[in-house]
Amino acid sequence: MKTIIIFIISLFAISANANENAPIISDESQECIDCHATITPGIVGDWEKSRHAITTMEEASAKSELEKRISISEIPESMSGNVIGCAECHLNNPESHKDTFEHFGYSVHTIVSSDDCAVCHPKEQEEYSHNLMANAYSNLVDNPLYQTMVNSVTSTQMYNDSGFDISEPNHFTEMASCLACHGTKIEVEGFVERETELGELSFPVLKGWPNQGVGRIDPDGSVGSCTSCHPRHEFSIEVARKPYTCSQCHKGPDVPAYKIYEVSKHGNIFSSNNKDWDFDHVPWTIGEDFTAPTCATCHISLLVDSDETVIAERTHRMNDRLDKRLFGLIYAHPHPVSGNTSIIKNNEGLPLPTSLTGEYASDYLIDEVEQVTRRNNMKNICRSCHSSGWVDGHFDVLDKTIEETNAMTLSATKLMIKIWENNLADNSNIFDEAIEKEWVEQWLFYANSTRMSAAMSGADYGVFADGRWQLSKNLREIHDWYELRMMMSK
Amino acid sequence: MKTIIIFIISLFAISANANENAPIISDESQECIDCHATITPGIVGDWEKSRHAITTMEEASAKSELEKRISISEIPESMSGNVIGCAECHLNNPESHKDTFEHFGYSVHTIVSSDDCAVCHPKEQEEYSHNLMANAYSNLVDNPLYQTMVNSVTSTQMYNDSGFDISEPNHFTEMASCLACHGTKIEVEGFVERETELGELSFPVLKGWPNQGVGRIDPDGSVGSCTSCHPRHEFSIEVARKPYTCSQCHKGPDVPAYKIYEVSKHGNIFSSNNKDWDFDHVPWTIGEDFTAPTCATCHISLLVDSDETVIAERTHRMNDRLDKRLFGLIYAHPHPVSGNTSIIKNNEGLPLPTSLTGEYASDYLIDEVEQVTRRNNMKNICRSCHSSGWVDGHFDVLDKTIEETNAMTLSATKLMIKIWENNLADNSNIFDEAIEKEWVEQWLFYANSTRMSAAMSGADYGVFADGRWQLSKNLREIHDWYELRMMMSK
Amino acid sequence: MKTIIIFIISLFAISANANENAPIISDESQECIDCHATITPGIVGDWEKSRHAITTMEEASAKSELEKRISISEIPESMSGNVIGCAECHLNNPESHKDTFEHFGYSVHTIVSSDDCAVCHPKEQEEYSHNLMANAYSNLVDNPLYQTMVNSVTSTQMYNDSGFDISEPNHFTEMASCLACHGTKIEVEGFVERETELGELSFPVLKGWPNQGVGRIDPDGSVGSCTSCHPRHEFSIEVARKPYTCSQCHKGPDVPAYKIYEVSKHGNIFSSNNKDWDFDHVPWTIGEDFTAPTCATCHISLLVDSDETVIAERTHRMNDRLDKRLFGLIYAHPHPVSGNTSIIKNNEGLPLPTSLTGEYASDYLIDEVEQVTRRNNMKNICRSCHSSGWVDGHFDVLDKTIEETNAMTLSATKLMIKIWENNLADNSNIFDEAIEKEWVEQWLFYANSTRMSAAMSGADYGVFADGRWQLSKNLREIHDWYELRMMMSK
Repeated sequence: MKTIIIFIISLFAISANANENAPIISDESQECIDCHATITPGIVGDWEKSRHAITTMEEASAKSELEKRISISEIPESMSGNVIGCAECHLNNPESHKDTFEHFGYSVHTIVSSDDCAVCHPKEQEEYSHNLMANAYSNLVDNPLYQTMVNSVTSTQMYNDSGFDISEPNHFTEMASCLACHGTKIEVEGFVERETELGELSFPVLKGWPNQGVGRIDPDGSVGSCTSCHPRHEFSIEVARKPYTCSQCHKGPDVPAYKIYEVSKHGNIFSSNNKDWDFDHVPWTIGEDFTAPTCATCHISLLVDSDETVIAERTHRMNDRLDKRLFGLIYAHPHPVSGNTSIIKNNEGLPLPTSLTGEYASDYLIDEVEQVTRRNNMKNICRSCHSSGWVDGHFDVLDKTIEETNAMTLSATKLMIKIWENNLADNSNIFDEAIEKEWVEQWLFYANSTRMSAAMSGADYGVFADGRWQLSKNLREIHDWYELRMMMSK
Repeated sequence: MKTIIIFIISLFAISANANENAPIISDESQECIDCHATITPGIVGDWEKSRHAITTMEEASAKSELEKRISISEIPESMSGNVIGCAECHLNNPESHKDTFEHFGYSVHTIVSSDDCAVCHPKEQEEYSHNLMANAYSNLVDNPLYQTMVNSVTSTQMYNDSGFDISEPNHFTEMASCLACHGTKIEVEGFVERETELGELSFPVLKGWPNQGVGRIDPDGSVGSCTSCHPRHEFSIEVARKPYTCSQCHKGPDVPAYKIYEVSKHGNIFSSNNKDWDFDHVPWTIGEDFTAPTCATCHISLLVDSDETVIAERTHRMNDRLDKRLFGLIYAHPHPVSGNTSIIKNNEGLPLPTSLTGEYASDYLIDEVEQVTRRNNMKNICRSCHSSGWVDGHFDVLDKTIEETNAMTLSATKLMIKIWENNLADNSNIFDEAIEKEWVEQWLFYANSTRMSAAMSGADYGVFADGRWQLSKNLREIHDWYELRMMMSK
Repeated sequence: MKTIIIFIISLFAISANANENAPIISDESQECIDCHATITPGIVGDWEKSRHAITTMEEASAKSELEKRISISEIPESMSGNVIGCAECHLNNPESHKDTFEHFGYSVHTIVSSDDCAVCHPKEQEEYSHNLMANAYSNLVDNPLYQTMVNSVTSTQMYNDSGFDISEPNHFTEMASCLACHGTKIEVEGFVERETELGELSFPVLKGWPNQGVGRIDPDGSVGSCTSCHPRHEFSIEVARKPYTCSQCHKGPDVPAYKIYEVSKHGNIFSSNNKDWDFDHVPWTIGEDFTAPTCATCHISLLVDSDETVIAERTHRMNDRLDKRLFGLIYAHPHPVSGNTSIIKNNEGLPLPTSLTGEYASDYLIDEVEQVTRRNNMKNICRSCHSSGWVDGHFDVLDKTIEETNAMTLSATKLMIKIWENNLADNSNIFDEAIEKEWVEQWLFYANSTRMSAAMSGADYGVFADGRWQLSKNLREIHDWYELRMMMSK
């Protein structure tokens, strides 16, 4: 409603001086648009709806500190006076981009990297670089144990009448599976001439492309992809603030965060009421712009109350408000110190944040003081809508759930150790046999889901929807399997 | 569109006498807001968007019978003249609330109970008290058989090299699992002093808090939680009428109602068109305010046609339109007479509405006459958009599905009885072993999903999505398990 | 916003000549409405919101070629001068409809068939008739192998202490399961007198009703149901263009297309931004009306750029843009030539598009030239928003995924052949035993999901959400089952 009022009031004003306020597009960008409006109309149309298309650096800089969306104090000369169009990004730093190609007199690169974005948003890039997500490519690829698991999932297994011939991991398969979310490393394999409507043109041949994973490594060497959450050419804060963005990678049984959010009270209120909320306002005002949090609210956004008192600073280092890591590993554990987890070694010498039986690799994990600080950062946001008693009660439930799900995983692991000791399964690869995959599901699916359900109050994901029901059933199925084989081996 | 027209027409009128129409907030409520606008801005902002914040009891009472949202004829003196603010609810009946605490000179209680709501909405509370949902806490906790099942899901099982040491059920675990939907019993454990921005203050320490389950028992002893469906401080009829609210507890594999609705024609039309519907209009006008039903339409709402002829009376006793209970139990059966099911005994002496082999505990279930009445209540709503032939055909399919899913459960149960008789499983607890949990899934997941799919025309949930595919596969898996063990025991 | 501007500008104009522009309803339709506005208010209200209710054939014909929604050049006399009301459809071709009945002097039929729609939309009906979907009833019912599978899913299995007594397939069960999506064959079983508010009236008794499946065969013999995607009485292009429509049949584990779309970048942008898009504009303008595709965009719609240059012609023959069939069968394969697949025979004489070990029944499948044509039709749409390099890279990933998932299915099939050869399962019915159903899930669930995930970039459905994780785990479980039985039989 507010939007409509403002809109009507401004209608006449706008029409009066429409020409004066027309966005100033640089000559270079205009030249791009002249062709691409018909060659790739979707991109151009998307950009035309963006804030980039209507805002000059001068206007962006003139905003108050709370309203500002850029994090530089001086405007780069190349950006001055114009809105942010095609050329302002795709012509950035041409020498550092291995995918730069000659295109109608310009040195263009296909992939706008986080280094390109950092020309105007350096603070955001720097913060983001400390995330597990920014390091998601190397965290997976440089961890030999994880690679064993990846290969046992993605390789093709040809049955040969007695067992399986296993294929080598394939580049395209990795793109379609793990690296779709983790990000690929994009490499320039050469250049190719293509026949186009405008004659023969040269384009780079890119390995690992297309990809929009969070830890993508771009041809200029920069790490972490901004387009994962601010997609395509609208770069919309609304899209990033809505939970659908996070759901792209956080919805499956291994990370059911979005599904749990959906059935939480927060998710219910979001789904019912978000049509009336303001997802574009910076700073984001609690109670005014929205009345229930999305993922971004609790993990990233700059939040204020209606007096513009800051409740939480914006952070693209998303673990600033996270004391524990709940998912992805065998046991929940204190958050890793560094976003780069490939350096971690547990007391068994394995690259894991805990041992197989749950002891923490403490040197690589945040200490108790830091855990308290981060939890308080989160609780402070909760208290914008909930009493201290509510908030404390909520986290008591979460802590108990972490303790119990870790214990239920330990039981399954003890059974697996028996199974390996009795040569009922072969532990040279602990991820490839059916019974081993049941063990993995104990922690990767059911313990994860149960913990996340406690973290976000999404009840059935803690019970019948990959929750305690499956956690207790799966444990008994592993036991059943073990007992049967032991009986037969006698 | 209609909204916008009315809005534009009223723009000038509103601006002319804005001051005269400003909501009258009681002094007590204003005092709350003065601090809480910055301490808990989310709550205050939420309330400001509510009907409570702009409506006095006099205005609410002056509505026509069809438009009225309150169910009292005389205005309580304490409520007169003001809008319904913080004090009007949180200061209600202080002596009956064990969580009442002294707060800046006021006797405040944290939890607004259904008895508090009933000051203005007594009919709704009374109706709701007859639901299974209102009794969901005691129906679960006071039924020893259900408690066995709950414990076999929620207890921690520590593997001890030969079997499992089972933990006692834990209070926090119950909060995070079954009672998240069923509701907790909230008890005052004492009071605590907290250091706050406004000095040291005293607050109640609440066991079982936070919780928003439908059958929550509040510290004043009142049963059933209104906030489950009318959440937080907006108390929105729009939220309650949208299906996301019901999805919070009715989405998992045990009760996939929302997922089935989503893929039904009703759900498709809702998802595609609801942005143009009026979810705030009372009475709710079929064909005008909306063109496809949500959960509330069929189960609760007051429905009229465009002449304001009543098609269905509002009822918060949601089983008024339900002849059968389709989910949650071993067999579908006529709806229980009372919302309190802990009193039921079957012919085996068990607290179940049917025997293990499917015979009804008829004394506790509604008779055929009442079943016909309730089904006709529902059919009458269907006929607002569908011909009699359509409606009858739809229910023929449902009846056949109930018969067949009950038969497929009986087959699984007969197999389980064999398994127990042959000591392949231990029936001292019929819910804890892997094979027993497979049997539970036969009825709790697959028969349920198949029946609900027939009830709401959500096809794949009757086939491949926890439907007949799994129903037939799971039966054969139980048979496979049984045959293998029998072969080995020879 | 655009909508609002236009709206405000037209407000005065509209009010000035409201009477002149009132829709002209035929006398026959008005007579229907006079009663049905109170008897079935939902239907009438729905129709009143439709384009049919405000558009005469003359107005529809006067549109430019690109804007036109009808595909006839001459207006049928019976349709001239009026908007399209009840009578214009329900009184069409009365003699060909076996469900025609006398109703207050009119020869009315209940079910508006695709032949009725084809009076004004013949091109759309003709195109649609070439789809697998239009033939979905007979493709299922006339294929004896598929019928074996259907019966092994839908029949009731009564346990008799040694095995199972299998029921005959039941008509109502088929309606509630496979035929809910595939469509029923609706037959007139007779006529019945019903007591109504308006006295005793006669109505047809319809077998197979209600149903909205895509291949429904109506009582006039016409094949294929328009209401599946253009539901009820609003016949909305907006509903058909939104993905919720497709999700009704394409969401389960056998066809998880919608779930994959939801977590794709396309789906994320749709969910976040579609409130601002124009789903009613014809032709559909890329970058202007929308900035990310829905199902309809890629598979059906007429697409133009902002200069109204056509990017893709509208087609209701949805396989015009599909080179491969990814789901539903044992192996992915080139698209069938004909929408009628019951004529196909593989080299084993079975009615399948491939042999059990994957060789194509090439005579019945499109050749490589046609595959290239169709893939280029699709790629052309992709290139509206993506570079050629992006698009080629995307399809390389899909092709590799098809190859590997087919190989993983072949491994499972080879194991099954061993199982059948060793009499561990009975291949007289290859779909009814537990281990056979595991084999079916290898291709029907996991290979399907993995391929669709590659086709639509929905990562976790290619990994942990019924993807490669389950594909590799299930293969090993079948192997485990086989090894255990072989060990026991020694």
